[in-house]
Amino acid sequence: MMDLFEAIARRYSYRGPFTAAPVPREDLRRIVEAGIRAPSAKNEQTTSFVIVDDPGTLARVAAMLDRPVCDTARAVIACVIDPRPVLPGISFAVEDCAAAVENMLLAVTALGYATVWLDGVLRRDQIAERIGRLLGVPEERTVRVLLPLGVPVEPGRQREKLPLAHRAWLNRYGSES
Amino acid sequence: MMDLFEAIARRYSYRGPFTAAPVPREDLRRIVEAGIRAPSAKNEQTTSFVIVDDPGTLARVAAMLDRPVCDTARAVIACVIDPRPVLPGISFAVEDCAAAVENMLLAVTALGYATVWLDGVLRRDQIAERIGRLLGVPEERTVRVLLPLGVPVEPGRQREKLPLAHRAWLNRYGSES
Repeated sequence: MMDLFEAIARRYSYRGPFTAAPVPREDLRRIVEAGIRAPSAKNEQTTSFVIVDDPGTLARVAAMLDRPVCDTARAVIACVIDPRPVLPGISFAVEDCAAAVENMLLAVTALGYATVWLDGVLRRDQIAERIGRLLGVPEERTVRVLLPLGVPVEPGRQREKLPLAHRAWLNRYGSES
Repeated sequence: MMDLFEAIARRYSYRGPFTAAPVPREDLRRIVEAGIRAPSAKNEQTTSFVIVDDPGTLARVAAMLDRPVCDTARAVIACVIDPRPVLPGISFAVEDCAAAVENMLLAVTALGYATVWLDGVLRRDQIAERIGRLLGVPEERTVRVLLPLGVPVEPGRQREKLPLAHRAWLNRYGSES
């Protein structure tokens, strides 16, 4: 049990090594279930997930990414988007996926693990496409986000955020909050 | 206090009328604070928020949208994105905003209110631009999402989601979960 607001306050991006403690599949499914429950435009549920915990596959993913956080990840959740339009000419696949990811980040936090939202790094050197092929993702779908996870060696904390008064205002942009 | 997983399970999209019960500014700030704590690419915090609770401004927003849920909303949170690139040629403003919205949806749920993520409707008839002008949003930023909120007259429930086995797989897309 973790209070929602506590999970939101404690969530942070972890880029360090993980301990050898495994992430049981029960926990992985619980995290992905949290992602599944996120809203999606017209409830089209355009995001799907590949839970990677096979050591050989994890090693191949890590080799493509060359990031310390991937080298010791005990599992990786690959978030796959379906970019077809849901309204005429408009896809909401990126929003749908991001909402699912945020739910999963909070679930990871509440269960005592750590992770980081990897996205931009997948756009280089066709890494997204290569991971998609490795995981058998159909060509019309794209691996958009990876979440490498495990028990952090040295837990961290959320990066500083601008105070409310710098990002939110009452009734008019830039007014007093 | 609401457990994270309970908030995730209870969150739903509400499109009906709201009661006359106000949403205190303390709660509105708490909801937006949850949005502020969402991650953003490189911690650039590209999402900002206008909390609308002035009855005149609410009425003008409602008139543009012509949606029952807006007609009786006691407050509307306008989520404003800054689309500048954070990596060369790549903006993460849509993802950043969606993560903030998801945190706010969960906070709304935990505090006993209801809301709906309005996005596509803002793309018609330049509604996003018109609301931006109404709220004094700078031209280089865009109102991307509106969250009309209040106490629901008839609370609803989350729409059915496909089961885990249809959206998630172990180690290979389409395999057994």
